[in-house]
Amino acid sequence: MDLFTQTVAAIGPLDAAAMAAARDHQGRMTKPPGSLGALEELSVRLAGLAGECPPPLPEPVTVAVFAGDHGVHARGVTPWPQEVTAQMVQNFVAGGAVVNAFAAQVGAEVLVVDVGVAADLPPAAGLSLRKVAHGSADFTAGPAMSRDQAEAAFRAGLDVARDLVAAGNRCLVTGDMGIANTTASAALVCAFTGADPADATGRGTGVDDAILARKVGVVREGLALHRPDPADPVGVLAAFGGFEHAALTGFILGAAALRVPVILDGVIAGAAALAACALAPDARGACIAGHRSMEPGHGITLDHLRLRPLVDLDLRLGEGTGALLALPLVQSAVRAVREVATFDSAGVTDKTEMADGETS
Amino acid sequence: MDLFTQTVAAIGPLDAAAMAAARDHQGRMTKPPGSLGALEELSVRLAGLAGECPPPLPEPVTVAVFAGDHGVHARGVTPWPQEVTAQMVQNFVAGGAVVNAFAAQVGAEVLVVDVGVAADLPPAAGLSLRKVAHGSADFTAGPAMSRDQAEAAFRAGLDVARDLVAAGNRCLVTGDMGIANTTASAALVCAFTGADPADATGRGTGVDDAILARKVGVVREGLALHRPDPADPVGVLAAFGGFEHAALTGFILGAAALRVPVILDGVIAGAAALAACALAPDARGACIAGHRSMEPGHGITLDHLRLRPLVDLDLRLGEGTGALLALPLVQSAVRAVREVATFDSAGVTDKTEMADGETS
Repeated sequence: MDLFTQTVAAIGPLDAAAMAAARDHQGRMTKPPGSLGALEELSVRLAGLAGECPPPLPEPVTVAVFAGDHGVHARGVTPWPQEVTAQMVQNFVAGGAVVNAFAAQVGAEVLVVDVGVAADLPPAAGLSLRKVAHGSADFTAGPAMSRDQAEAAFRAGLDVARDLVAAGNRCLVTGDMGIANTTASAALVCAFTGADPADATGRGTGVDDAILARKVGVVREGLALHRPDPADPVGVLAAFGGFEHAALTGFILGAAALRVPVILDGVIAGAAALAACALAPDARGACIAGHRSMEPGHGITLDHLRLRPLVDLDLRLGEGTGALLALPLVQSAVRAVREVATFDSAGVTDKTEMADGETS
Repeated sequence: MDLFTQTVAAIGPLDAAAMAAARDHQGRMTKPPGSLGALEELSVRLAGLAGECPPPLPEPVTVAVFAGDHGVHARGVTPWPQEVTAQMVQNFVAGGAVVNAFAAQVGAEVLVVDVGVAADLPPAAGLSLRKVAHGSADFTAGPAMSRDQAEAAFRAGLDVARDLVAAGNRCLVTGDMGIANTTASAALVCAFTGADPADATGRGTGVDDAILARKVGVVREGLALHRPDPADPVGVLAAFGGFEHAALTGFILGAAALRVPVILDGVIAGAAALAACALAPDARGACIAGHRSMEPGHGITLDHLRLRPLVDLDLRLGEGTGALLALPLVQSAVRAVREVATFDSAGVTDKTEMADGETS
């Protein structure tokens, strides 16, 4: 059995009994039924994932920021130079980026994982060196990665998820860094959802109209060259890359196999989640959409995966920032199920009882 | 000078220089310009409120849950018995409600303030006894409160804000409890915004069609009886109550006067914010819309106040729960301004510099 088949085999459906128990418990908590809105269904799903009600508190937490470079950068799809990927990795390691500030605020650790940065990075605390290659190839000229490279990056992500859960983490958060990775993401979104490049391709870090038009053309070229088959998710990943997408796919499936929730950041994580759920549809049960980014391909992805984002504030930064903002919401949803009194235990009159009383 | 005039006189506009400094700083942080979306403008506003850039971290934090009962309860606008207000206050004090779980998650203290509960409550830790009366009067038969009562409740809220800031709090959060208070809120929203009762009145804790129709009729009756003048905010508060609305109005203006941000919960806080901003338009600068509740009058309120909610998850619980979920987002927005490296300091290439370099 190859690594993909083996990983997929370990992923099962949500536990129906735990979900039923969580729904029942939500109805007995001292609050009007349904009044916690989307957080109630989230808590039910997390009970199903854990196989118990209440589910465990999703903490401690680590955001894994997978970094890689992209051959398609040469096509002029962004004004940012490729060297910024490595510079931002150094910034993450030094604690100076937004992902560090947000992680500090919500009590998450930051782990940076080099799976394909073009530059060689010196060893550092908080940096895991798992480089598969010095950047992917230009997907408009051939596959971004070989299948073996895609598998190696997938394995890196899977191993990171396993290591983090073994170290005690009870919630994983996706992060990413890679100049030009919204271009690769747009191609992946089109390949998996059938969306048109003009609809799925966005301004990324904020490109102008001329670069956006070029970016749409580049995605269209790539799709015409590879004619991707969504029934072959590994082939799609290899066609368009990058290494961080393949690693995130392994990371998501690792979380799902270990039945730990994974909070997805924006369109890069979303594209990886499309690959993950194409390989193992039950992996969706472990996926929480942290936020909706400004990137149009991300909205298409969330619709395709039927995931409702928890935060929607026009962010378009990546790094894991949007997912980290959602973490306290996820934790609050679970904490409510674990800690809130029931009508019985608190001596609060339930309107249902009153209605019964009035009619009896 | 009466208490209202005196309070309003202490509230000034946002500091333009601090806001300009914050905008400039956002552009130098190691991230694409604008990539933090709504959180960038929020951080700019908080700099303007504090009068310095970066603004202070909004912590420590207390959620003040103002509780009161409503004479309009007698009109059958909710299936919940009035006694639930006092029971839920006891639940808050015992730490068993959702507001307690969410506050624990985000590191906020809970202070419950009785300004108008119908029952007498025993003294307890975490409960401030500032009762103005044992519930308001039915606003379809006369004013819910006298002007003196409205002023006493306003003073209670103002004093709570001052006490909390004096105790070191750097961010305040609104909470509320009061069976039937969405009915009073709908009337206040209509009075201040001109909305029709059919548009502004909602299902509150989840009333059925028959009760909703009755509720709309009750709001319409109240408006016809009092013919409220939005230019007389105290008169509007007195007409429709409740005591928690008047107290929250004082609480919001107290925060604004002390230049401390106040995170608003749902439609009850929103109705109070309409009164606060009618008294002192500059108070809006201190108001952060924590979330958008399911109550239709809340959407009308947020539009009227031009506030963008940070969380939008179909919550309709009250207590301060939606505002508490927004707290880590507010703190993250400020922490980013305080801690993130600039392009210069981190040695990251700015695309603006590159563009300059390419054209030179």
